[in-house]
Amino acid sequence: MIVDCAHYHEGVRQHKGPLDIETAAAAANGDGDFVWLGLHEPGASELEDVAAAFGLHELAVEDARNAHQRPKLEDYDDSFFIVLKTARYIDEKEEVEFGEIHMFAGRSYVIAVRHGAASELRAARQRLEQHPELLQGGASAVVWAILDKVVDDYAPVVAGIEDDIEEVEQQIFQESADATERIYFLKREVIQFHRATFPLLAPLEALERGAYAPVDEQLQRYFRDVADHARRIDEQVTGQRELLTSILEANLALLGVQQNQVIRQISAAVAIIAVPTFLASLWGMNFEHMPELRPEWGYPLALVVMAVLVIALYRFFKRIRWL
Amino acid sequence: MIVDCAHYHEGVRQHKGPLDIETAAAAANGDGDFVWLGLHEPGASELEDVAAAFGLHELAVEDARNAHQRPKLEDYDDSFFIVLKTARYIDEKEEVEFGEIHMFAGRSYVIAVRHGAASELRAARQRLEQHPELLQGGASAVVWAILDKVVDDYAPVVAGIEDDIEEVEQQIFQESADATERIYFLKREVIQFHRATFPLLAPLEALERGAYAPVDEQLQRYFRDVADHARRIDEQVTGQRELLTSILEANLALLGVQQNQVIRQISAAVAIIAVPTFLASLWGMNFEHMPELRPEWGYPLALVVMAVLVIALYRFFKRIRWL
Amino acid sequence: MIVDCAHYHEGVRQHKGPLDIETAAAAANGDGDFVWLGLHEPGASELEDVAAAFGLHELAVEDARNAHQRPKLEDYDDSFFIVLKTARYIDEKEEVEFGEIHMFAGRSYVIAVRHGAASELRAARQRLEQHPELLQGGASAVVWAILDKVVDDYAPVVAGIEDDIEEVEQQIFQESADATERIYFLKREVIQFHRATFPLLAPLEALERGAYAPVDEQLQRYFRDVADHARRIDEQVTGQRELLTSILEANLALLGVQQNQVIRQISAAVAIIAVPTFLASLWGMNFEHMPELRPEWGYPLALVVMAVLVIALYRFFKRIRWL
Amino acid sequence: MIVDCAHYHEGVRQHKGPLDIETAAAAANGDGDFVWLGLHEPGASELEDVAAAFGLHELAVEDARNAHQRPKLEDYDDSFFIVLKTARYIDEKEEVEFGEIHMFAGRSYVIAVRHGAASELRAARQRLEQHPELLQGGASAVVWAILDKVVDDYAPVVAGIEDDIEEVEQQIFQESADATERIYFLKREVIQFHRATFPLLAPLEALERGAYAPVDEQLQRYFRDVADHARRIDEQVTGQRELLTSILEANLALLGVQQNQVIRQISAAVAIIAVPTFLASLWGMNFEHMPELRPEWGYPLALVVMAVLVIALYRFFKRIRWL
Amino acid sequence: MIVDCAHYHEGVRQHKGPLDIETAAAAANGDGDFVWLGLHEPGASELEDVAAAFGLHELAVEDARNAHQRPKLEDYDDSFFIVLKTARYIDEKEEVEFGEIHMFAGRSYVIAVRHGAASELRAARQRLEQHPELLQGGASAVVWAILDKVVDDYAPVVAGIEDDIEEVEQQIFQESADATERIYFLKREVIQFHRATFPLLAPLEALERGAYAPVDEQLQRYFRDVADHARRIDEQVTGQRELLTSILEANLALLGVQQNQVIRQISAAVAIIAVPTFLASLWGMNFEHMPELRPEWGYPLALVVMAVLVIALYRFFKRIRWL
Repeated sequence: MIVDCAHYHEGVRQHKGPLDIETAAAAANGDGDFVWLGLHEPGASELEDVAAAFGLHELAVEDARNAHQRPKLEDYDDSFFIVLKTARYIDEKEEVEFGEIHMFAGRSYVIAVRHGAASELRAARQRLEQHPELLQGGASAVVWAILDKVVDDYAPVVAGIEDDIEEVEQQIFQESADATERIYFLKREVIQFHRATFPLLAPLEALERGAYAPVDEQLQRYFRDVADHARRIDEQVTGQRELLTSILEANLALLGVQQNQVIRQISAAVAIIAVPTFLASLWGMNFEHMPELRPEWGYPLALVVMAVLVIALYRFFKRIRWL
Repeated sequence: MIVDCAHYHEGVRQHKGPLDIETAAAAANGDGDFVWLGLHEPGASELEDVAAAFGLHELAVEDARNAHQRPKLEDYDDSFFIVLKTARYIDEKEEVEFGEIHMFAGRSYVIAVRHGAASELRAARQRLEQHPELLQGGASAVVWAILDKVVDDYAPVVAGIEDDIEEVEQQIFQESADATERIYFLKREVIQFHRATFPLLAPLEALERGAYAPVDEQLQRYFRDVADHARRIDEQVTGQRELLTSILEANLALLGVQQNQVIRQISAAVAIIAVPTFLASLWGMNFEHMPELRPEWGYPLALVVMAVLVIALYRFFKRIRWL
Repeated sequence: MIVDCAHYHEGVRQHKGPLDIETAAAAANGDGDFVWLGLHEPGASELEDVAAAFGLHELAVEDARNAHQRPKLEDYDDSFFIVLKTARYIDEKEEVEFGEIHMFAGRSYVIAVRHGAASELRAARQRLEQHPELLQGGASAVVWAILDKVVDDYAPVVAGIEDDIEEVEQQIFQESADATERIYFLKREVIQFHRATFPLLAPLEALERGAYAPVDEQLQRYFRDVADHARRIDEQVTGQRELLTSILEANLALLGVQQNQVIRQISAAVAIIAVPTFLASLWGMNFEHMPELRPEWGYPLALVVMAVLVIALYRFFKRIRWL
Repeated sequence: MIVDCAHYHEGVRQHKGPLDIETAAAAANGDGDFVWLGLHEPGASELEDVAAAFGLHELAVEDARNAHQRPKLEDYDDSFFIVLKTARYIDEKEEVEFGEIHMFAGRSYVIAVRHGAASELRAARQRLEQHPELLQGGASAVVWAILDKVVDDYAPVVAGIEDDIEEVEQQIFQESADATERIYFLKREVIQFHRATFPLLAPLEALERGAYAPVDEQLQRYFRDVADHARRIDEQVTGQRELLTSILEANLALLGVQQNQVIRQISAAVAIIAVPTFLASLWGMNFEHMPELRPEWGYPLALVVMAVLVIALYRFFKRIRWL
Repeated sequence: MIVDCAHYHEGVRQHKGPLDIETAAAAANGDGDFVWLGLHEPGASELEDVAAAFGLHELAVEDARNAHQRPKLEDYDDSFFIVLKTARYIDEKEEVEFGEIHMFAGRSYVIAVRHGAASELRAARQRLEQHPELLQGGASAVVWAILDKVVDDYAPVVAGIEDDIEEVEQQIFQESADATERIYFLKREVIQFHRATFPLLAPLEALERGAYAPVDEQLQRYFRDVADHARRIDEQVTGQRELLTSILEANLALLGVQQNQVIRQISAAVAIIAVPTFLASLWGMNFEHMPELRPEWGYPLALVVMAVLVIALYRFFKRIRWL
């Protein structure tokens, strides 16, 4: 589905509604002109039309047809093919939902193909259209705007995970509850998220260094800015990964602490009941001469002795903190 | 055993059935001509005939004679020797079955030697024969086609392991069953699989960069595509490895949780029976003046008291979730 | 808020009180002249005024507006933008408190923006003003002085963590107390602190190597000194991280040791009480011919036997160290 | 002790028995001539004689005097000094026995000094003498032959460890036996073996790349072959190391599983005996009106009730798999 | 405190007793002349005098004033500043005691400042004075001699730790004693020792490669020798670190094994006493018709039955190895 398709001349949009593909392809070969085409989960034929109109490379088109690519930047002499993973944190499920954006970026066109619940790019387009001075950078400016949007959208994911980690800390340290399953699934999400963001670092740093020709020096700094944000995300994710490993270990240790505590409680309880039971057995013996069995106060005294012992034991175990 | 042996001219197969080795070797020296020879677990003499006919290097031939090589690409000036590990996932046994493909690739010939349950190459050959424009790339195109097939066949292995990991998660988190053995053997498979695929990355990236002369620029992109797939596989395998480590730890923690639970259940049961037993001992004492032993309602009341205490304890332990 | 703003000529401050921004910007373009402007959490408009007066790059200004940047050094042809994390150890809470200093460093100006509880820079300024020979190095000398101050302030943090690690060792080895939570939170602080200091190493080493033009050779050695201190911090933090991992494991093992000990104690206690209880049951049997029940010394002897057994068991368990 | 000392001319041995050192040293300076001298744990004076005759460097000679060097290759302009660790697996003790070979390799001589139970080099010499075309490569060919022998001898070690790992897997998963000590010592052997083989990789790869002058291109491929084998060994050892870590963790988890099982068994047994004991106490009470005590069938019925309950409990615990 | 101060000409000491600083500084500017000055924990003024006399750089002098530097080599155009950590193993405390040596090495002087219990350098000086051919290398030879001494002194530390590791293995595997604390503190020492030796590798390898001008090629090999020893130390320490991690895990597993054993013992003991206790309760019941209570042999038979059961149970638990 075509989301939008616009022709820009010297940084200014030349028309209101979206162009059709042929007109756009024809417009995308002037000097200060370029076309920005946005597609959302295009059908096979639609993608083929676009590929034919803009002369896209077969391999890149094949990749764009399927989601589940890894983030990458491929250089095809006169154009790039860029794959980005977008991410969104679903707090209720504590899951990261991934989408994908595939970009074909030539000197005079950018074709962005969105798959799944990928970041909305409308905001990026509007922001850029309000900055004609950036848009004059041409297609590279669009590439930057999309990268910037995608990487900025990683921040809430990191924050969401951070929140959940804090909740887990609360859970295991304050509430002494087991959180093994939650920790494990958080870690799984972090590993997946890392896999989605980490491979982006190398191409972003290449863009920052200006390894790719069509990016002018002015824009390079904007790419550096994106690379810097991506690095920050990556460092945070790496830290979270290590934290989650530590939490899992702490959780294990706390289970041991709890077990020690439970065993002590039980033992105390067993001791408290074993002592009077022994006494009862004792006075249940059938010796003929057990003088304490005779008097009337024998039984009440026995009960008192038992009660006193129980209370004393209870206090003792309270004091040594087994109860 | 010779599987197939064909002579291609300008990307077109020149005959139907397989050629014999001498004819093939003679044909493999023209300009746009090359020969594609497929062998399956060749005998020593067969391999020697081929080596003599095509002038293969002794060391490479020695390697090809034995399976259990590590993946590699060796440059012999005028030819390459490539070793690939093929992999297939046997879901019932949760094992990865490995095979090997050894390729001798010269300017005008490709000799592929399959060992064990290696990927069928027939599909690669047929696909390529239907694309004469690729076949015009000569021997390199065949190398690409085989690499592409082998690396594509890694994907189901990763998917199979992924499925089993999800089953294990289900097993330990939903069913609270111990899965130590299964996790361990899955991890062993993942380690082995990693060892089979990882060493391929460096030579594939060298091919992608065009470090080896006879690959033309057009094909380089196809090699880059293969390298990209291999990287994706590698990242997934690395992720699975880390996940399995975490699952083993989570499994250990869950064992602790279960143990705590079991100990609590047992303690509750002990307490529930210890209390009436104490009472029975109490009323079994031989004091002469135990007024409650006299009346007729003494015994039934005692039974009632015991029953009430048992029920109260049971409820109590239910409430604090020890039962 | 402007903290101070001074114009230096040949290393000597030209006036007493702070200058206003316009005068400063005008002064900051001579040969041996430069301006050092210190801001503390400036408002948006204040920062914009400064940016306009000194011609700072939009992206750097945007970064300086928000705290929570990662440490970095960005080169803008004629100037640098440097982000530093400052750290302070709050011993009571066992937490590292972070602040930030953002520096814009041009040939003839240094603008330092402090966020949060960042290191006071007054000391750095006073120290430098007393060394005009260093100040003659111009803006680079100021950059060095600030870096030096910030990195020196890391040392007490490392020392504070070191102290707490020793306390934890004391706690788990001498006092046999569980310290899981404390260890975990110390580790979290160490991970965060590492993330605040580690990214600084690369740009400091670049400064040391003289990768950035406006630093003269004399000052390079001073930057090397700072880099060396930062490396020492980094190595100590890495060591602490590994130590804390080991402590967590040791803590887990000690929990197991304690549990073994507790189980032994309990078992000994159970055994000590079970034996006389058995004897009491034995003599409570209703056989008609139990000769020991008859004589007067029967009961006292039984008590003595029980006491002797209890004492013997107690000694036995003491000897095998179960009690 | 001199093992053998031979003078080769154009790849052909010039005499039968071993030469004495002076004659050998004199012969070792022609064009196609070189000398291969094998020593086994030479005395100090013997080594000094050799050093004087061939002009070996003092530092290398000092190293050769003592075993316990790390594997290395040192370039002394006109000669190399190579240290190799040889390894042999002692299956009964599950230990790797290490020896050492020190080689002085000049343009026209190779002096191999064996320490400890190092690989026999006789086989390497005989194999090479049967391939005069290789021997024409001169001293480098001898270096290759020795390297090849040493690295080939690593394979049985890896295989031996592999077998023991499989035995351990059998032991802990099938036989549920604890294997902590065995796993630990296997891991220790693997770590030591890794330390013996890993440092060899870098110099072997340097030889492969032809970083050292006197190796001709033809032989380089043979060195590449050795390097490839060494890499395979290294990858296998690394895999074994990781496996052993996982086994230790699996072993720990299985201990937990067993403990849960043992605790359940015990609890079941306690419950089975506690119930009839309670009943016995009950009917041992001294209430005057306990009608069931009167009739003759009272006692047999009580016994039946107890037996029924014991059997019912036993079946119950069998069904929930606690027994 | 000045330990010694000597002027060497062409490798020969020019006088007996120590020179004073001014004379030494004056002598240290000829061609084949150089001065070797040894200081031990010099006072501030003493160090300043030396700095002034030899023109040492302020930053290096500041470092030399304080111990607790990290190992490093800093190049000051015409001189080096080298920091070394010396180490000594205190076997009784199982601790590594660190000292420091700071060297200022110029073309014609070496000033060695020792801090704490650093290696005695007298031996290095005497050894060198007996080898005038080495001393002719000038100041570099002294640097080498000191480096060599310091690195050689690491070997006993590694050996001491090795011994203690073997003791710990003995302790936990043979004696089944818990060694958590000992393992932990050994690991802490190993981590600290690693931090003291590891940073030395890079500068030593730079010296080995001849990255620093004033070292002649002859001496380079001696530096390579030192670097090689340092690498060996480093590999051993790394191995010990990994071993200690494994021991801690093995220790944990053994605790689990012991716990299982203890629990089984206890359970067996409980069972052995519970069965006769049950029988005693049984025969303590008050049924009127319990024929076995009547006869004279009733009681002795009961005792026999109990004894037989106890023995049978004991044997049973012995056989299944619970006792």
